[in-house]
Amino acid sequence: MDYPALAAESLTRIGETKPLVHQITNVVVTNDSANLTLGFGALPVMAYAPEEVAEMAALSQALVLNIGTLSAGEIEAMLLAGRAAGDKGVPIVLDPVGAGATRFRTESALRLLAELPIAVLRGNRGEIGALVGSGAVRGVEAVGSEDPRAVAEAARARFGTVVAVTGAVDTVVGPGGTLLVSNGHPLLGRITGSGCMATAAIGIFNAVGDDPTLQTALALGTYGLAAERAAEGNPGPGTFRARLLDEVAALADAGVAGVRVAAG
Amino acid sequence: MDYPALAAESLTRIGETKPLVHQITNVVVTNDSANLTLGFGALPVMAYAPEEVAEMAALSQALVLNIGTLSAGEIEAMLLAGRAAGDKGVPIVLDPVGAGATRFRTESALRLLAELPIAVLRGNRGEIGALVGSGAVRGVEAVGSEDPRAVAEAARARFGTVVAVTGAVDTVVGPGGTLLVSNGHPLLGRITGSGCMATAAIGIFNAVGDDPTLQTALALGTYGLAAERAAEGNPGPGTFRARLLDEVAALADAGVAGVRVAAG
Amino acid sequence: MDYPALAAESLTRIGETKPLVHQITNVVVTNDSANLTLGFGALPVMAYAPEEVAEMAALSQALVLNIGTLSAGEIEAMLLAGRAAGDKGVPIVLDPVGAGATRFRTESALRLLAELPIAVLRGNRGEIGALVGSGAVRGVEAVGSEDPRAVAEAARARFGTVVAVTGAVDTVVGPGGTLLVSNGHPLLGRITGSGCMATAAIGIFNAVGDDPTLQTALALGTYGLAAERAAEGNPGPGTFRARLLDEVAALADAGVAGVRVAAG
Repeated sequence: MDYPALAAESLTRIGETKPLVHQITNVVVTNDSANLTLGFGALPVMAYAPEEVAEMAALSQALVLNIGTLSAGEIEAMLLAGRAAGDKGVPIVLDPVGAGATRFRTESALRLLAELPIAVLRGNRGEIGALVGSGAVRGVEAVGSEDPRAVAEAARARFGTVVAVTGAVDTVVGPGGTLLVSNGHPLLGRITGSGCMATAAIGIFNAVGDDPTLQTALALGTYGLAAERAAEGNPGPGTFRARLLDEVAALADAGVAGVRVAAG
Repeated sequence: MDYPALAAESLTRIGETKPLVHQITNVVVTNDSANLTLGFGALPVMAYAPEEVAEMAALSQALVLNIGTLSAGEIEAMLLAGRAAGDKGVPIVLDPVGAGATRFRTESALRLLAELPIAVLRGNRGEIGALVGSGAVRGVEAVGSEDPRAVAEAARARFGTVVAVTGAVDTVVGPGGTLLVSNGHPLLGRITGSGCMATAAIGIFNAVGDDPTLQTALALGTYGLAAERAAEGNPGPGTFRARLLDEVAALADAGVAGVRVAAG
Repeated sequence: MDYPALAAESLTRIGETKPLVHQITNVVVTNDSANLTLGFGALPVMAYAPEEVAEMAALSQALVLNIGTLSAGEIEAMLLAGRAAGDKGVPIVLDPVGAGATRFRTESALRLLAELPIAVLRGNRGEIGALVGSGAVRGVEAVGSEDPRAVAEAARARFGTVVAVTGAVDTVVGPGGTLLVSNGHPLLGRITGSGCMATAAIGIFNAVGDDPTLQTALALGTYGLAAERAAEGNPGPGTFRARLLDEVAALADAGVAGVRVAAG
C-alpha cells in the first residue's frame, strides 16, 4: 500500500468536502482542537448542550468524544450525541483522557464504549490499558510499562472497536490487521492536548473514508508529520504549539510523502 | 466623515478609560477574547455564574453575549446580565454563533433578542440570515448565498438593533444608515474565534461611544486592519493568531490610517 | 540564603519527581496553565467533576484552586478536592480571582479560606485587599492604592496562610518572615492569565518543598525570570505569551541565576 498517496487523497477529500466534525471535548484543548480542525480544512463545531447535541451530531460527518474534563451532564450529552451519530452512521471517535486516574473516568469511558457504537478508541498505553485492567496513569500521563500492542489487542478484543495506542510509535489495531505509525516528535509530549489533537485528527480522517483502521493510521501519520516539521530547529513548546497549527495548515502544499505507516 | 480619525479617537478613549467589558462567551474563544480585550487597552472580565452576572454587568461599560457553546444555564445567566446591563444603559452586543445550525441556537438567539435591549447583533450572513428565516449554516460557518446587505436590513427591520453582517466586506446597518468596512484578511477565516473576536471588538468600541452604528464599523475596521498587518508575509494560522494579538496591541502606536469605512 | 541555588534545586526536583498538580481553574487560562505546568516539568491534571475531584486531589502533590470563572457547582468541587488534599497533606494554593469585584467572588473566596487548610493565598493587592476589607477591583484588575505589604500582612493575620501579593514587586508573607521578589516584566500585565499562571507556578514549587513561604517566593522569582527572558526584544503580547512557555521550559538549561528574592 502507498500510504503517503492515500494520506494525500484523504487530505484532498477533506479540503473538497469540508466535513463537519462535532466535538464534545475538554476545556483545556478546545481552542487548539478547533484550530487543528480548520487547519486540516475541515469544519469544527463544539456543541455540548443536551438540547442540541443530537441534532448537531446527526448533521456531522464525524463525532469526537473526549472525557478530559468530564462532568455527569457531559456524559449525558455524549450519549445523546453518540446515539444520533450511530443512527446516521456518523463515525464516533472516543478519547478516554485520564482513564485509570480516577474511577469516574474509567467507568465513564467504559459506559460510553458499552452504550455507543464507537468506531475508534484512542489513548496512551496507560489509558487504554486501564480500560482492560492493566494500565497505570498519573493524571493524564501513562507511567507503566505496558506493551502498546498487547494493550491495543486486548482492547480490540474486548470492545470490538478499532484501537489506536499512541506513543513513540502508534499502534492501530482493527479488522484489517495492525498498522504502525512512526511519525511524530517528542515535543508533542511537551504541550498539553497533543493526544486530544491526535484524536481530533482521527475524527477528521474518518469523516472522509470508510476503513477506520486505515483512516486512523493516516490521520496519525499526517498529524505526526506536521509535528516533525513544526519541531525543526527545536523550538520551545510555546512556539512549537503555534507552528504545529501552521504546519497542519501547510500539509496540502508541503505534501505528505513523509508519512510512515507500515503493516505491523 | 474621517473614519480613521474617529477610530483613533476611540482607541485613545479606550486606553484612557480602560472600559470593563463583561463577556459571557464560549469556551473555545475565551482566552483569545480576553487577550484581544487587553490588547485594545480595555479590561476583560469573564463571569458566568447567575450569582454574580447582574452585579458584574452593572459595573461594566459593555456586555458581550456569545452563544458559541451555550447551555440552558448560560442563557439564564445571559438574561440576568442583560437585564442589569439594560437597567444601567450598558450596551449589549450579541453574537448568535451557529444560529441556524440547531434549533436550540436559533431559538436561544431569538429569545435573547426578544427579552434584552441588544444594541448590536453581529454574525455571518448564514447566522443572521437564519434569524430572519433565510440563512444556511453548517456548524458555525455560513454556506449559503445570501446577500449580506439584504440579510442585515431584514434583521434590522425585525429586531430594531444595529446589525453587523461580517464577511469579505462587513455591512453595518443602523439608525444612521449603512456603513461598509473593507478591512480584514482571509487568514481570519483560518482561525477559530475570529468572528467572536470581532464581536468582542464591537463591545469594546461601544463602551466608548454613543453611536452604535459608527462604533461597530470602527471596531470592525480597526480589528480588520490589525489582521491585515498580522497577515503580512502570509504566516500559517498558528503564527497569525499570535501576531493578531501583537498587532491589536500595536494599533495605538502603528496608527489606524488604514481603516476603510465608507457610507454604503 | 542563596535563593537562585534553591530555585535550581526545586527545578531539579520538579523534573525528577514530576509532581502531579491538580488544578480546578477558570476556563480562560486552563490551556496556558496546563502548558506552563508541563513547561516546568510537572504533570498538570484539570479535573472538575464532584465524582472525581477528591480522588484526584488525594493522588496529587499540589492542588491549585482558582475562582476566575466560578460557579456554585465548582465551589462544591473545590471543597471536596480541598478536604481530600487536606487529609493527605497535599498543599493547597488559592487564587481569589476578581475577589472584590462581586459579592459572589469575595464570599466564595472567604468560604474556601474558612473551610479548607489553604497553604498559600495569591492575588493582586486589590483582590487580597478585598478579602480583608480594603481592596479595590475592577473586573479582575486592582485599581486602588493599597500598600501590598500591609495588605499581605493583614491577610496573613486574618487567614493564617502564607500570602503572596503580586505586582511590580511580589510580597510573600509567611511564618518565616517576608520575602520580596523583584523578577517579572510589565508584559505580564498585557496577557490574560498571567496571575493565574503565577498561582500555578506556586502550586508546582510547593509540591517539592516543605517551606511554603520559600517555595512561593522561588516560584514567583523563577516564573518572573522566564517572563523577563520572554520579553527580550519587546515582542507583542501574542508572541510574548508563546515565548513565555518557551522560556519556562528552557529554565532548566538556561539557569536561574537571575532569580531575585530578598528578605523583606
